[in-house]
Amino acid sequence: MSDSKNATACLLIIGNEVLSGRTQDKNLNYLALELTKLGIPLMETRIIPDIESVIVEAVNLCRAKYTYVFTTGGIGSTHDDITAESVAKAFGLDFGINPEAEKLLLDHYGDKANDARMLMARTPNGAELIENPVSVAPGFRVENVYVMAGVPKIAQAMFDGIKGTLAGGRIHVSKTVSTIGISEGMIAIELGEIQNAHPDVDIGSYPFLKMGKFGTNLVVRGEFEPQVDAACADLVKLIEAVGGQALDGETEGDELK
Amino acid sequence: MSDSKNATACLLIIGNEVLSGRTQDKNLNYLALELTKLGIPLMETRIIPDIESVIVEAVNLCRAKYTYVFTTGGIGSTHDDITAESVAKAFGLDFGINPEAEKLLLDHYGDKANDARMLMARTPNGAELIENPVSVAPGFRVENVYVMAGVPKIAQAMFDGIKGTLAGGRIHVSKTVSTIGISEGMIAIELGEIQNAHPDVDIGSYPFLKMGKFGTNLVVRGEFEPQVDAACADLVKLIEAVGGQALDGETEGDELK
Repeated sequence: MSDSKNATACLLIIGNEVLSGRTQDKNLNYLALELTKLGIPLMETRIIPDIESVIVEAVNLCRAKYTYVFTTGGIGSTHDDITAESVAKAFGLDFGINPEAEKLLLDHYGDKANDARMLMARTPNGAELIENPVSVAPGFRVENVYVMAGVPKIAQAMFDGIKGTLAGGRIHVSKTVSTIGISEGMIAIELGEIQNAHPDVDIGSYPFLKMGKFGTNLVVRGEFEPQVDAACADLVKLIEAVGGQALDGETEGDELK
Repeated sequence: MSDSKNATACLLIIGNEVLSGRTQDKNLNYLALELTKLGIPLMETRIIPDIESVIVEAVNLCRAKYTYVFTTGGIGSTHDDITAESVAKAFGLDFGINPEAEKLLLDHYGDKANDARMLMARTPNGAELIENPVSVAPGFRVENVYVMAGVPKIAQAMFDGIKGTLAGGRIHVSKTVSTIGISEGMIAIELGEIQNAHPDVDIGSYPFLKMGKFGTNLVVRGEFEPQVDAACADLVKLIEAVGGQALDGETEGDELK
């Protein structure tokens, strides 16, 4: 694992149903926003099918490359739920009943516990459980890989339970300067020059359309507030130089990006 | 390119704003559904940042692996729009003004054409343009890589323009058997057995909750209708064997997957 100051994250969304379009993923955006708040940038997301060799390869590649890997999907009780076993294979670990998970499921299902449901008590050997406050069947962690459910409500609850244990990175300062009536294309070159003059911050331009007028939200992100403020000041000057009015903060409109 | 009967697709969503959570992607689901209709399975989606080396690596890896690669995002006029140039690098092609794109943009912008906007006339040398009926600035194709805008309305219009040129694969037959009052966990083991008995089809189980009752939609996909029908018949038998009622077609509910 790398230094927590440079912590990075990767999300693997596992499920044929997302790739076929049958199901619309709702976990990416939630995790992206949460990780951004924690100062752990999400560097990559892969959406992959329920194919063991593909899951094994992606898990092994990503766990070597990123501080944290989160997976969603494929931990239910049917034949196409192969994430847990695939993660065991990726780590070369035995796969079987986790006594703690078994107890949770037996307590929950009582008389209704059956073979299929007890499949959800299996984890790679030695995995640490991730609590599922919605429907009990737990997720789990092996080293830096966090295996969570695909159902958005459950995935979000699982993440909320573990996020306090993640070593956060740099919490970024983010400020926005916006303008209406000045389109992105009118200031794009100068925007690039301001970015070059402020290499310690990231400047993003998010154009929008509002009541028939083009405008843009210029978002400046950086580790230190004075650097962010200095770039914002240059953006205000640029907007005023082309005859626009610089607004402090975000303007809502129909986003064009 | 592989045989069109086995055509496959990959989507690269390029943009820091999607990974930070600022922007919610809307292109994946649209393209997934369209490609499924064309019989070209979407095998993988990667969401990657605006970093040249990352884009180059992903493009080269995916264009070798899949029949079609679609990219969305990063072809606007600001400094962070580096997709077009990165694709040129991936192919080892020169990058510069495309005369046809230049004419389109000059005709459209007239007096308002400026340096920044004309950046959008640049493509890899020899690229074929993809029409943008929404805001003119075109996408482009190099070999099997289709570079499209990130704005959903534009990405969708671009894809609609090119989809007739894609060599479709096997159009799959898809039928659904559903049931209410029988939860996935009650039939999961037998479902796996039915899947094993019908290796030429794919059976997916999509559990839901409807008016306090669990149920599941069992979706059977395959190339040939008789094979799909045979698997559906077995699913009906299974549902009836556990005391449930098999419904023809999909039941709507709160999806749990």
